[in-house]
Amino acid sequence: MADTTKPDVLARGHTVRAYDQELAELTTLICRMGGLAEQQVAGAVDSLLRRDVGIAATVIQRDDEVDALEERVDQHVIRLLALRQPMAVDLRIIAMALKISNDLERTSDYAVSIAKRAQRLAEQPELRPIASIPRMASACVAMIKDVLDAYVDRDADKAMAVWNRDHEVDELYDSLFRELITYMLEDPRTISRCIDLLFIAKNLERIGDHATNVAEKIHYMIHGSQINRPRHEVG
Amino acid sequence: MADTTKPDVLARGHTVRAYDQELAELTTLICRMGGLAEQQVAGAVDSLLRRDVGIAATVIQRDDEVDALEERVDQHVIRLLALRQPMAVDLRIIAMALKISNDLERTSDYAVSIAKRAQRLAEQPELRPIASIPRMASACVAMIKDVLDAYVDRDADKAMAVWNRDHEVDELYDSLFRELITYMLEDPRTISRCIDLLFIAKNLERIGDHATNVAEKIHYMIHGSQINRPRHEVG
Repeated sequence: MADTTKPDVLARGHTVRAYDQELAELTTLICRMGGLAEQQVAGAVDSLLRRDVGIAATVIQRDDEVDALEERVDQHVIRLLALRQPMAVDLRIIAMALKISNDLERTSDYAVSIAKRAQRLAEQPELRPIASIPRMASACVAMIKDVLDAYVDRDADKAMAVWNRDHEVDELYDSLFRELITYMLEDPRTISRCIDLLFIAKNLERIGDHATNVAEKIHYMIHGSQINRPRHEVG
Repeated sequence: MADTTKPDVLARGHTVRAYDQELAELTTLICRMGGLAEQQVAGAVDSLLRRDVGIAATVIQRDDEVDALEERVDQHVIRLLALRQPMAVDLRIIAMALKISNDLERTSDYAVSIAKRAQRLAEQPELRPIASIPRMASACVAMIKDVLDAYVDRDADKAMAVWNRDHEVDELYDSLFRELITYMLEDPRTISRCIDLLFIAKNLERIGDHATNVAEKIHYMIHGSQINRPRHEVG
């Protein structure tokens, strides 16, 4: 009798392993999406600072890859839910992947928006250097990177640390805003370029928002409860 | 024997009814969220046009209700997935609720952003009337309303019609953008007010984007496949 149960145990072991692999694959997909979104943001700001329309074109083109990854995440989630009937923390991990993929897809959309403005700005005379833009960009890229680490490590504290850093980006935005208004008043010929930069800064601010959104979802994934609000706001 | 199976059949009937009720409750929650998001957008633009800081304050305050509804949707989805193990179209309806609630929550965030700028603008001299803003707002409110109808009716064609209307809002934005740049050049004292209006218009454009996002999710919910891209982009 003992022998005949063996294949059954093995089969169950096999199912569990397959399930673990599918969960691991979901994590991998989110990480690939996140890594790509991070590159998109870095590339977009790089194209702006170097006035390089080629880099900008690459960012615009690669957005399709991010969209395709979102679709793969969604399909994978639906399949896991249908076949595996996950419970508790696994269920939350799988369900939250749908929301996290949304945030990462939007992050890449914002990078595309920055890249398009960078292309337009590259064709016009250069404004004096705007130090806050690369500082905002570095802060945003670091937030995306850290929130992905928190995701992989299933580390709610690390996610909270990202969530608490959103104000850095907001403060940089506010100081940049004042600076750009001053330029426009001093020289109205710079108005349309300054507006492009304002929108770029606003896009970076929103990229920071999305990183904090992901942090909130990681917290929920792990603890099954929301981070205490008040939440960040959009401007 | 026939009699003893009766309670079982009844019990199963009861379970099915309970499940249908839970699905209906999910639809109701999404509709309440959507209806509130629609009111938030209408209220925010109303506060701008009437220069009424009280209406703006109400919009800002009600954002918490929208956030709370998103949490309720998410909790309800997790519960449904855990207890009911839905399949096929039901599974997609339940899973997509997580994404749709995200879009509706962002819509309300944008309304709050408009309301805050409306409060600031109400304290400053009035610019000449900007006809495109109420037109953009009407178009956005109609898109939210129609996409919610498509959601309730599970009508992919209706959702597609909303998706195809996004360009109306984009075109209104483009013409408004040119108009505001002209004002700023003519009279640099209007710069900061015009920038508030530019961001308000951009927020409306994004609200339109989110309505088209919801339309995409309805399409996926019903057909299990994506709408053919190219997708809208963020600016």
